[in-house]
Amino acid sequence: MALVDLDRFDFLYANRVKGMKTAATRDLMATLSRPGIISLAGGFPDTKAFGEEAFKDLSDDVAQGFAQALQYGPTGGLETIKDVIVDVMEAEGVSTRQEDVFITTGGQQGLDLVAKTFLDEGDGIICEGPTYAGALNAFAAYRPRIMHVPMDRAGMIPAAARESLEKARKQGVHVKFIYTVPNFQNPAGVTLAKERRRELLELAREYDLVILEDNPYGMLRFEGESLPTLASLEQEDNGEVERVVYLGTFSKIFAPGVRLGWVHAQPGILHKINVGKQGADLCSSNLSQMMISSFFQNSDWRGYVNRLNDIYRERRNAMLDALAEFMPKDVHWTHPEGGLFVWATLPSYIDATAMLPQAIAKNVAYVPGEGFYAGDEGKNCMRLNFSFVESDKIRRGIELLAEVIRERMELRGSLERGSHSGSHASQASQAAEKSSSRKSG
Amino acid sequence: MALVDLDRFDFLYANRVKGMKTAATRDLMATLSRPGIISLAGGFPDTKAFGEEAFKDLSDDVAQGFAQALQYGPTGGLETIKDVIVDVMEAEGVSTRQEDVFITTGGQQGLDLVAKTFLDEGDGIICEGPTYAGALNAFAAYRPRIMHVPMDRAGMIPAAARESLEKARKQGVHVKFIYTVPNFQNPAGVTLAKERRRELLELAREYDLVILEDNPYGMLRFEGESLPTLASLEQEDNGEVERVVYLGTFSKIFAPGVRLGWVHAQPGILHKINVGKQGADLCSSNLSQMMISSFFQNSDWRGYVNRLNDIYRERRNAMLDALAEFMPKDVHWTHPEGGLFVWATLPSYIDATAMLPQAIAKNVAYVPGEGFYAGDEGKNCMRLNFSFVESDKIRRGIELLAEVIRERMELRGSLERGSHSGSHASQASQAAEKSSSRKSG
Repeated sequence: MALVDLDRFDFLYANRVKGMKTAATRDLMATLSRPGIISLAGGFPDTKAFGEEAFKDLSDDVAQGFAQALQYGPTGGLETIKDVIVDVMEAEGVSTRQEDVFITTGGQQGLDLVAKTFLDEGDGIICEGPTYAGALNAFAAYRPRIMHVPMDRAGMIPAAARESLEKARKQGVHVKFIYTVPNFQNPAGVTLAKERRRELLELAREYDLVILEDNPYGMLRFEGESLPTLASLEQEDNGEVERVVYLGTFSKIFAPGVRLGWVHAQPGILHKINVGKQGADLCSSNLSQMMISSFFQNSDWRGYVNRLNDIYRERRNAMLDALAEFMPKDVHWTHPEGGLFVWATLPSYIDATAMLPQAIAKNVAYVPGEGFYAGDEGKNCMRLNFSFVESDKIRRGIELLAEVIRERMELRGSLERGSHSGSHASQASQAAEKSSSRKSG
Repeated sequence: MALVDLDRFDFLYANRVKGMKTAATRDLMATLSRPGIISLAGGFPDTKAFGEEAFKDLSDDVAQGFAQALQYGPTGGLETIKDVIVDVMEAEGVSTRQEDVFITTGGQQGLDLVAKTFLDEGDGIICEGPTYAGALNAFAAYRPRIMHVPMDRAGMIPAAARESLEKARKQGVHVKFIYTVPNFQNPAGVTLAKERRRELLELAREYDLVILEDNPYGMLRFEGESLPTLASLEQEDNGEVERVVYLGTFSKIFAPGVRLGWVHAQPGILHKINVGKQGADLCSSNLSQMMISSFFQNSDWRGYVNRLNDIYRERRNAMLDALAEFMPKDVHWTHPEGGLFVWATLPSYIDATAMLPQAIAKNVAYVPGEGFYAGDEGKNCMRLNFSFVESDKIRRGIELLAEVIRERMELRGSLERGSHSGSHASQASQAAEKSSSRKSG
């Protein structure tokens, strides 16, 4: 039996497949479930917090409508879950109606359907740098031009966004939307300041484009006051949502295993999304929709979210404390007020991707930063998740990680001393550092 | 508050959205759930047959692993469900391994991911005429050229497929795959003969392309002997599957509400599918996967499929009997040996789309034929589903439908007599028949 030649059908594949890379996080998943590994890599909520009894209650409730739960449903979702979403969005400050909401198979499908609706090859997207890797994957299928805009601790910098828009205009690139994760951004953990939200809306009007507001973490706030969504700010200005396409998900306020999210947008856009959804997967799971409806209608869902926030707050604190305690002084990190992630920046000569196997060998894992950029940036950065692992393990994980980083720093120190004194350091080690050494000033 | 102008953002939409039409079936769903309507339109299995107790047993089993059920899963699916699929494919005559199987969010997502992997704009697809409307929707997002090949009662005609391939070659169209639903085809209800399966494989080798074998209904056979899948025939010839990409689904042998299917293909292709899946929806629902695993591992799933077949066989018989009893003589239909659908062809001057509102007014619904073609064909055809409605209602539905058709035929008869005698018939009625009257010989 001949071995299959992996490249045998290259001439048959679409061009787009060549531009799509696999997500480092997802590829790592097998390794990360190895016992003993402290994984700060995933973006996993803590689903154990839900409890078996609560799960059983939901199942029993859904069982009463089992024939519907097992059947195909409407393309845009069941009415009951749309009612739930109207309530959730109300809690986020957006007043809305059933018909403005469209159910998707997780927030991820929302990204895919919006991209499918707007992007021709070569169209531009303005997004944060770094940005959510899954969004880059979804967008890549439509071969756009990604333009990263730098952030500071108040999120995407509007003046820099304007520069990018001007540049695109000069180059004849049609920018279709600005993509932002305004709250506790994935991966950077920063939150877009209120006045900047208004400035982005103003930019969208001026350049006549759409804003894709991706808000999975908005309710996971541990401190400080909630900021208005871009959708609600547009509603305040206009009386209605026109150019903000809002993505929500149940993955963080209920559970990702049900794969349910939603798009909130004006009818013209939802009509296109509807057509795309039919081709993508016909409809989302009735079973999942009915479980969620049952939970949100019969339980204290706000109480559940508060309970999650208590857990995550404690773990975030554990992570920030451990970072302060263990990290060498040239390592910097963000201080998220909510969400799931801290973003750490190492000295520019350290390649976090190249360092990962060494970290895993020490039983700690993270996501290297380069996956959060369409281009070549972020190599000396990493995303650290604090939602999934208990506090004592987080502390131990950060301790181990600090050791790995310190070893890398010392290796470089000794290499530099070595080359100054003319001795021959290991060529392999030199090669490993080579790609980043040009950057180090 | 200003009304939203639906065309306001037309300049922002992608070109592909213009080529995508909404599926008539899906758009009709709201109407079809109206009490009193006998809907022969959907492609719904009978999920009531599953039973509340069986559903509860599954839920209780899944509850024991609730934290995993609620969590993100691996991109390609859980190992337990892949084991189930290996068993199911064994029952379909394909011997396979976990690693050749990839989980999708329903069979529909399989279509989308395969299209995403292979299609650049303008590439060709050979498929049956008529073909599954959902496949046309999935493909349309990638803007291919659809080439329908006629069928007879033994399925797609290979000589006609060869002609299309030759024509494409001359026109410089790169045909990427042949798409076929070999068993009890949706919508035509016909089954591809065994020797034709071999001929299609031979064509695929000769023209160096892939065969997309979509087999949701293979196990729903009411009579006659099972035919080997194209995947198993290739395996027989080659020792392995190389150019057959096989799509399976749990929608018909378990339930569509869980939205789970699979792709079976060689590793090079699955690698591309994996990348596409990450962008599309990250992973399929663990909850759904665990329910299915529980059912297939702990229950007599073959017994359940047999039970479904008993139900569907009786309903198919009821439909065929009623068609024979009630339909005017110029109406023809197929005799499916399994599956969910009968395809009926009306006199060429009747437009089944134009006739639908009249049928719905009489409380019976079907899917007009034109949605099953990329072009302009099938207007005088309809798809009739027999799986969802009880036999006595099927009989009544066909009786009502026959009345509507007879009225149309009589209307035309009187219009013809009217125009011969110079009288003025209703202009509205004339206009309604106009588009098809050119075709009537």
